[in-house]
Amino acid sequence: MSQPNQPSQPFEITVGNVTRSLRLVPVGQMGFVPLVEFLGDSELTRAVAQALLPLIPEGTEALLTVVTNALPLAHELSDLSGLPYEVARKKRRTYMQAPLIQEVPGLTLGVSETLWLDGLHARRLGGKKVVIVQDVIATGAMATALARLVERSGGTVHGYLAAFKQGESSLPVRALQELPGRVEP
Amino acid sequence: MSQPNQPSQPFEITVGNVTRSLRLVPVGQMGFVPLVEFLGDSELTRAVAQALLPLIPEGTEALLTVVTNALPLAHELSDLSGLPYEVARKKRRTYMQAPLIQEVPGLTLGVSETLWLDGLHARRLGGKKVVIVQDVIATGAMATALARLVERSGGTVHGYLAAFKQGESSLPVRALQELPGRVEP
Repeated sequence: MSQPNQPSQPFEITVGNVTRSLRLVPVGQMGFVPLVEFLGDSELTRAVAQALLPLIPEGTEALLTVVTNALPLAHELSDLSGLPYEVARKKRRTYMQAPLIQEVPGLTLGVSETLWLDGLHARRLGGKKVVIVQDVIATGAMATALARLVERSGGTVHGYLAAFKQGESSLPVRALQELPGRVEP
Repeated sequence: MSQPNQPSQPFEITVGNVTRSLRLVPVGQMGFVPLVEFLGDSELTRAVAQALLPLIPEGTEALLTVVTNALPLAHELSDLSGLPYEVARKKRRTYMQAPLIQEVPGLTLGVSETLWLDGLHARRLGGKKVVIVQDVIATGAMATALARLVERSGGTVHGYLAAFKQGESSLPVRALQELPGRVEP
């Protein structure tokens, strides 16, 4: 099978006074999705965190994210808001104590993943109103797995926050902007 | 073989006005090392970045770090200094274009690793004076691999910056503090 040709126009986003041309990366043989990269871009990360700040639901007591792309964003959002954040990992670490293990079924790319949350960090979510923070929410499978981690930690899910939404998920996601789920070449 | 008993006293660090008790994690059957966790701790991350700021060598034009623990730190340091940063990954990503691949021989834990730097990001280091940023530098094997990535990107290594040093490496590392390489139980 041949790959479709890469579209000649990159996809452009503007957040605050930061504008970026997103690379389009192939998904299957069907089309392209814009790639949001926070790693290596502190300017975009900060602009997005500042724009997300007013979208944090009132009463939020903690944030939960997952490695890797959303990590600098969650850090910055924690820094700006003063809210603590926790991070689910995609690998077991030897130092984890009684980690919570959570499967993420059927991701966009068709590969299922496993999340690990150190028991010591899970405890910090106990009894708290927790908001899920992600870079992009598409199907919502990852967000749902993170929500399960919140519940299993004894916290309550207080909302879903994403820099970008892609396509339709059934979750009540607050996002800055919609990204095309598929850009036809 | 039996594990040594966990020392009862955690190891304490203070950076700026932030104090943390570090968990001690077993290394082999020999002892314990203090675990520095930036993930989920924006307060410590910010304090460390602020303290590292004056240690960035004059003339530095970019920073290079590696996932995962040092990532929020490098982001924050980039944010505070205005210097761009790049991130080496430990897995190949499908969207990477002509990535540089670099082996990290003989790490502390005896497991060798591979680093991946997206060609698009490598190009941004070309012709620049680059400082390596890490959370902890111990043997210096990872720092040396990152330095190779800088050179292979066409940049020059302008220094090594770490929040903490552990033991003796032959690299000229600027760090805030020395951590015990091994805490006897």
